[in-house]
Amino acid sequence: MPDSTTTLAGLRSDVAAFVAARDWAQFHNAKDVALSICIEAAELLEEFQWHDAAQVAAASRDPEARERARLELADILVYCLCLSNALEIDVSQAFRTSW
Amino acid sequence: MPDSTTTLAGLRSDVAAFVAARDWAQFHNAKDVALSICIEAAELLEEFQWHDAAQVAAASRDPEARERARLELADILVYCLCLSNALEIDVSQAFRTSW
Amino acid sequence: MPDSTTTLAGLRSDVAAFVAARDWAQFHNAKDVALSICIEAAELLEEFQWHDAAQVAAASRDPEARERARLELADILVYCLCLSNALEIDVSQAFRTSW
Amino acid sequence: MPDSTTTLAGLRSDVAAFVAARDWAQFHNAKDVALSICIEAAELLEEFQWHDAAQVAAASRDPEARERARLELADILVYCLCLSNALEIDVSQAFRTSW
Repeated sequence: MPDSTTTLAGLRSDVAAFVAARDWAQFHNAKDVALSICIEAAELLEEFQWHDAAQVAAASRDPEARERARLELADILVYCLCLSNALEIDVSQAFRTSW
Repeated sequence: MPDSTTTLAGLRSDVAAFVAARDWAQFHNAKDVALSICIEAAELLEEFQWHDAAQVAAASRDPEARERARLELADILVYCLCLSNALEIDVSQAFRTSW
Repeated sequence: MPDSTTTLAGLRSDVAAFVAARDWAQFHNAKDVALSICIEAAELLEEFQWHDAAQVAAASRDPEARERARLELADILVYCLCLSNALEIDVSQAFRTSW
Repeated sequence: MPDSTTTLAGLRSDVAAFVAARDWAQFHNAKDVALSICIEAAELLEEFQWHDAAQVAAASRDPEARERARLELADILVYCLCLSNALEIDVSQAFRTSW
């Protein structure tokens, strides 16, 4: 299901099921999940390390670089949704409060 | 609208409208958006700095600490959705590929 | 004392004395010190957020921007030396092994 | 040479020579060096991901885990000294101003 029909609650539920299936109690520890978001964010950033503006633009069009960025972004999002589950945060409402 | 009725596409569209209204061309620069995700992730992490397991659990129940975490999480997510817009990444599908 | 006459051991000793004077047992917890390095590194990075190459060059010459970067860099280094003390790592030798 | 006889200026000079030998102009770009400090800090943090207090203590005694932490710490320090060279920051004096 694409973004057009996937709700935030649906995606959060998928993340929760994924965690439950593996009995990953660690995924309920907010500090380690926050730490994991940070680690994954740095892995995404590594895709752009030493790149000047022209190289960033080129990477944005390169299929392999895009795929790597796509997977790193997914990793960050999964941990964000883990944390929203662990702390029972409605992220759609949080977005509207914050911005 | 809460997570139960907000689609990823809807939230991405809100982020795009927010950026367009401010003419923030910088928000289309993938490297700086990735860098911003990292900075915001570290700000979230700061909420848990020096906390042992008992303090993490206590913070998870404390309204003020929860509110700070909620806003930091929202900031990370907004930048994640900016990047998905800039690189045209369907995050729901990315999640299902990656996990 | 400037870099020309300060040894790594001397600076590590100053950091150790500073920690001891405050009875900061937390500064011996390697995980939280590593986490703190990450947080401080993101604060340094924030000095360059959204800056293009010309702005980075300008900031490198601006006294106030330089002073902020100097203090953030000091914060990172202090935590690095805390960790080298906690784990008894000789950083000069580590540098020569690694590079 | 160990920390007891290595000065900060000496280590900075070694880093400068290393960079000069490779003609790494990128190492003079403060933004990318700051970004690299952040990436390396996250790699160090990864050594402690999901570890509880007992596991952190055990890792602090484990030779292989110690060696990985040692090399990650060296990577962070090299980039810190690159930045001190690029911005002409005396880190010993910065430490004494900041703490």
